[in-house]
Amino acid sequence: MSSTCGTNIRLTLFGQSHAPAVGMTLENVPAGQKIDFDLLNRFLARRAPGRSAFSTGRKEADAPVFLCGLVGNVTCGTPITVVIHNTNARSKDYENIRYVPRPGHADYTAAVKHAGYQDYAGGGHFSGRLTAPLCVAGGIAKQILAEKGIDVFARIAAVGPIADEGDFTAPVSDKEFPVVSDTQGDRMKALIAEKRAEGDSVGGIAECVVTGLPVGLGDPIFDGMENRIAQIVFGIPAVKGIEFGAGFGAALLTGSQNNDPFTVENGKIITQTNNAGGILGGITNGMPLVFRAAFKPTPSIAQPQQSVDLRTGKVTELRIEGRHDPCIVPRAVPVVEAAAAFAVYDAFLAAGLK
Amino acid sequence: MSSTCGTNIRLTLFGQSHAPAVGMTLENVPAGQKIDFDLLNRFLARRAPGRSAFSTGRKEADAPVFLCGLVGNVTCGTPITVVIHNTNARSKDYENIRYVPRPGHADYTAAVKHAGYQDYAGGGHFSGRLTAPLCVAGGIAKQILAEKGIDVFARIAAVGPIADEGDFTAPVSDKEFPVVSDTQGDRMKALIAEKRAEGDSVGGIAECVVTGLPVGLGDPIFDGMENRIAQIVFGIPAVKGIEFGAGFGAALLTGSQNNDPFTVENGKIITQTNNAGGILGGITNGMPLVFRAAFKPTPSIAQPQQSVDLRTGKVTELRIEGRHDPCIVPRAVPVVEAAAAFAVYDAFLAAGLK
Amino acid sequence: MSSTCGTNIRLTLFGQSHAPAVGMTLENVPAGQKIDFDLLNRFLARRAPGRSAFSTGRKEADAPVFLCGLVGNVTCGTPITVVIHNTNARSKDYENIRYVPRPGHADYTAAVKHAGYQDYAGGGHFSGRLTAPLCVAGGIAKQILAEKGIDVFARIAAVGPIADEGDFTAPVSDKEFPVVSDTQGDRMKALIAEKRAEGDSVGGIAECVVTGLPVGLGDPIFDGMENRIAQIVFGIPAVKGIEFGAGFGAALLTGSQNNDPFTVENGKIITQTNNAGGILGGITNGMPLVFRAAFKPTPSIAQPQQSVDLRTGKVTELRIEGRHDPCIVPRAVPVVEAAAAFAVYDAFLAAGLK
Amino acid sequence: MSSTCGTNIRLTLFGQSHAPAVGMTLENVPAGQKIDFDLLNRFLARRAPGRSAFSTGRKEADAPVFLCGLVGNVTCGTPITVVIHNTNARSKDYENIRYVPRPGHADYTAAVKHAGYQDYAGGGHFSGRLTAPLCVAGGIAKQILAEKGIDVFARIAAVGPIADEGDFTAPVSDKEFPVVSDTQGDRMKALIAEKRAEGDSVGGIAECVVTGLPVGLGDPIFDGMENRIAQIVFGIPAVKGIEFGAGFGAALLTGSQNNDPFTVENGKIITQTNNAGGILGGITNGMPLVFRAAFKPTPSIAQPQQSVDLRTGKVTELRIEGRHDPCIVPRAVPVVEAAAAFAVYDAFLAAGLK
Repeated sequence: MSSTCGTNIRLTLFGQSHAPAVGMTLENVPAGQKIDFDLLNRFLARRAPGRSAFSTGRKEADAPVFLCGLVGNVTCGTPITVVIHNTNARSKDYENIRYVPRPGHADYTAAVKHAGYQDYAGGGHFSGRLTAPLCVAGGIAKQILAEKGIDVFARIAAVGPIADEGDFTAPVSDKEFPVVSDTQGDRMKALIAEKRAEGDSVGGIAECVVTGLPVGLGDPIFDGMENRIAQIVFGIPAVKGIEFGAGFGAALLTGSQNNDPFTVENGKIITQTNNAGGILGGITNGMPLVFRAAFKPTPSIAQPQQSVDLRTGKVTELRIEGRHDPCIVPRAVPVVEAAAAFAVYDAFLAAGLK
Repeated sequence: MSSTCGTNIRLTLFGQSHAPAVGMTLENVPAGQKIDFDLLNRFLARRAPGRSAFSTGRKEADAPVFLCGLVGNVTCGTPITVVIHNTNARSKDYENIRYVPRPGHADYTAAVKHAGYQDYAGGGHFSGRLTAPLCVAGGIAKQILAEKGIDVFARIAAVGPIADEGDFTAPVSDKEFPVVSDTQGDRMKALIAEKRAEGDSVGGIAECVVTGLPVGLGDPIFDGMENRIAQIVFGIPAVKGIEFGAGFGAALLTGSQNNDPFTVENGKIITQTNNAGGILGGITNGMPLVFRAAFKPTPSIAQPQQSVDLRTGKVTELRIEGRHDPCIVPRAVPVVEAAAAFAVYDAFLAAGLK
Repeated sequence: MSSTCGTNIRLTLFGQSHAPAVGMTLENVPAGQKIDFDLLNRFLARRAPGRSAFSTGRKEADAPVFLCGLVGNVTCGTPITVVIHNTNARSKDYENIRYVPRPGHADYTAAVKHAGYQDYAGGGHFSGRLTAPLCVAGGIAKQILAEKGIDVFARIAAVGPIADEGDFTAPVSDKEFPVVSDTQGDRMKALIAEKRAEGDSVGGIAECVVTGLPVGLGDPIFDGMENRIAQIVFGIPAVKGIEFGAGFGAALLTGSQNNDPFTVENGKIITQTNNAGGILGGITNGMPLVFRAAFKPTPSIAQPQQSVDLRTGKVTELRIEGRHDPCIVPRAVPVVEAAAAFAVYDAFLAAGLK
Repeated sequence: MSSTCGTNIRLTLFGQSHAPAVGMTLENVPAGQKIDFDLLNRFLARRAPGRSAFSTGRKEADAPVFLCGLVGNVTCGTPITVVIHNTNARSKDYENIRYVPRPGHADYTAAVKHAGYQDYAGGGHFSGRLTAPLCVAGGIAKQILAEKGIDVFARIAAVGPIADEGDFTAPVSDKEFPVVSDTQGDRMKALIAEKRAEGDSVGGIAECVVTGLPVGLGDPIFDGMENRIAQIVFGIPAVKGIEFGAGFGAALLTGSQNNDPFTVENGKIITQTNNAGGILGGITNGMPLVFRAAFKPTPSIAQPQQSVDLRTGKVTELRIEGRHDPCIVPRAVPVVEAAAAFAVYDAFLAAGLK
């Protein structure tokens, strides 16, 4: 069902951008896991809007309220439900798009699918705001994985044509703008500022790495690590592509180039290269799991756009007021971490590990 | 569970490359659907090995045996199970890889995951041979969709660095080598032949288009069309990336470039461009659904490769005998169609359509 | 997963008796369904505690707060989440049972299962309080079914050895004590009062009837109507048995007695008797669907009981203070209706009906 | 989906009574489990028809063919598919019931549900023959559980009004007629013979006990042991009721009678009585799990019965030829064991045990 994912733990996202709340329920997390709320809130702050010049002006306290699933700060084994109240919604910003769908948004498809009963304000359930509860779930998974020596971290790999540079083998998440090369980061920021000034937006790529994985997570065919991660990552609005390891680049290679030779290091079997992105046959091979997700440019732009009035069936010009990120990738970085952490923890439990 | 997918119809793949059979069960297909066995067999023939110079020498009759789910050639509403007997397996080809995992294959990860009890012969359940029953399921879905005016067709978009050229708006599946530009196709064939001669292999890209879709298929967040298709397409061995519409290219664009303006044509709302690949907010918008899947080069190559002997923990040289495709993409084209057809038909039923 | 059920609509219950809230998420209800809040609140009031001499003294406003899933009072097609805040919890009532499990309760099994991290206060997630959100979900389903001419209604069929009398073919839910025979009802009330006075409790049976069903709901083998209803009804605390139609009584009959002969009435195929309880092969046959659920006596009784102190491993005497129903059946009647309504509506949607 | 059950392991049944085969796929059984085929075949023989005067004259070799999932006789971790070919089907026996549904059977409901496309021969997918592959799955689960000290065994608890007598604490499955009291067994046999002679049939009750269970199997609310077992047991044709522990009898008791006091024996916490049937809050408490399933009398009887011709809409007399069990309970005993073993093993794995 559409707003639920997971096999051994299960996540359900609920809420609409301008409803009383968004939130999530996370089922089957083992009892006895301590939640570090400070750590969780710092993680959520990385996604929260209104923190920098590079994101929407909408500010939300985004304070997660735990309704159940804990005794004190320790999981009790039954469903964890967290709600985030929507305190700063301005539905009137969206009146003009009720019948004039925004290009690149779900307005039109949701209107048809839900027969005109969709919640059009702020994108409703299709809003990027649903990534807040996804980060709550993923933030919890990330904490639990970290205790087991499994680290999940992501960076901005590219904004438009500007790519990050340097090896990405350790977290950069303490940076306000999470890139390896701050020089490239400055260029990305300049591009975002330029596009904002033009009333436009720009796309980009987030890259995620998971280290410390045991061999054997993931299952054959439809529940391999790629399938599990892809199913969740495509749940992040604006993602239009995902690739693992060498990814689309592997299509250009020969087998002798792309195959990662096995070798032994400190008594452990590893591969000399990691074109596989840590996954063979859908199953982790102990190397870092690496994937990249392509984000389209934010569809909400200030420039006038052509649309159709659903009432009259006539072409019309649409102007979107609202507050929107000129590039979603910086805020998407923790969301990608959250998606990956959820998928990895689910596969971890599915493998019977504790 | 790993070998099962689908929400409203459910597909379970079973079997190992060298077990008595591979097969599939397809649940919840509505009663009263007529199966055209000739059409199905022609579809399966497109995937079958041993048909051309570009694929493995292993020949399998690959005759699907319907055990149940039909009365005559009409679905009766209860599970359809089809088996394909393995008649041409040569397990001895694989004796030398039992303890020396092939680079780029699931041998090592399966051995660890299944604690040494994995079926190592021919890749076991991880074998590309499991795509045969996937094609049976997808072939059935494709037939049913075609009756509803929904067509699913794919092509070879690239082999290594050689890309197909020309508009891909109609099927090329009656060609032995399914590309739009036969000139480019000849270059691709030459590259494959060259790599085969070198004892090597090469990767590539398959592109799939679905036309005739109603608006409204797919569900928000985790069951959008991208999620549904990605979960199944990553079930095809060797796929390392997937992108929809402009995909990774969208990361390079601005919003004003990437957004597809709405317009009206013959009283129908369409978009002027299709960077979205027919999907907005996870839901079909009535434009052609377009995606591309990146295939890594076949990992089984004739050149000697470095591996590790799992018994001794020592590095060793591995030579793979067997029979293998130097490029999997030509045979993968119908498999990608099958995966897409299954996912689309599932979403079609989930939308309450008949 | 344990707190989730349903195939085409999905219900997730969350919360603990003494956590900030209990609640539910209901996914996949079609868009455009109007919710009558007055009707829903009247339905919930039938389950709410503290309404009569026959139930616990704990009073809860039990006001359901809709967090999302609606625009106004109409479903918008995305998840409906409702929370009920716990306002009258007295955790200190439960301090003495933390390490001394109550006989007949989940205290001991939850403590072992959740390794001592269980929420012991008020039974935690195992509390009968979780039936409040179940009634929200079932109340919504019941309203939607009623609009389609499908009525779900239940009665007290027995309290201890005292059985209701008379034909049960129409709702008695407007009665404070829902029985057909008020004379038998008075005897039941007297028995409950007697057991309360003795510091004891008593069991009973609830019977549920669903009328107006089309032929064809339910699916073969594991998703028949019996399986669907049983899976949910056993989710109501204290249920220890369920039977459909003649049920256990059918075990005493011969085929010639038990088979319901087909006949025709007003052009419609019906059966002359209804020993099948409206279900043949798991599928509704158009006759009233009838089932009974056996409730054990409330395990929380005022009389001292023997238990074991989990800290010392020694037998000890337990006295339960708290506030408890001497017979759960009167309040369970709407809960059984809710469970049945959810299961029937789910099967209705699974059958492709609208 | 209707023919699939299970959470951590998953069972899919497929096939129709008169199709080429019936069978099952069992997913997610851990690798490395040895299957004892002799033991499995002896178990299947207990269910097979044609073995005694008390069952149908139809004889089937019922030889299970393992298509995959094993290497030798050891599970390899991927799906196990077993088919049983239908060798002795006589479809012409069923020609007369194509349009004249048998009372008490799924003929009418399947015809409506599947819009006339149902496989009417022999009951199609609704046939009791589908219990053969259920026994293959359950037989495998039973073997694995036995190695862990968990024993699953059932008996005939009643045939019509004749109940078995004596304590049922150890298997009686080596008896041709599995009862504790052979005297009562003889009376049951006499009753069955009498009903057969009358062209009639009779119902009965099967009782199942599971010993050696750890504390903590089963999950709260909808995946408790009762829910899990009920969902599967109602998948056995002819089951119309199920009760756990004191079951419907508990409805007659007071709390002080029904509550099982905790005590300590040999350092282990147990209960002095077992009215709970080994389950508290849906979770095993370490006592024997006990349940009973009510079977209606076989609906196929030789006596003429009243039905309706679906073509004319007129009442007509139906005579069933075929070969049918006069009482299904003797053959149902191993099927109930199979259902219980599957459910228990699934809960065992869900609890993270190995």
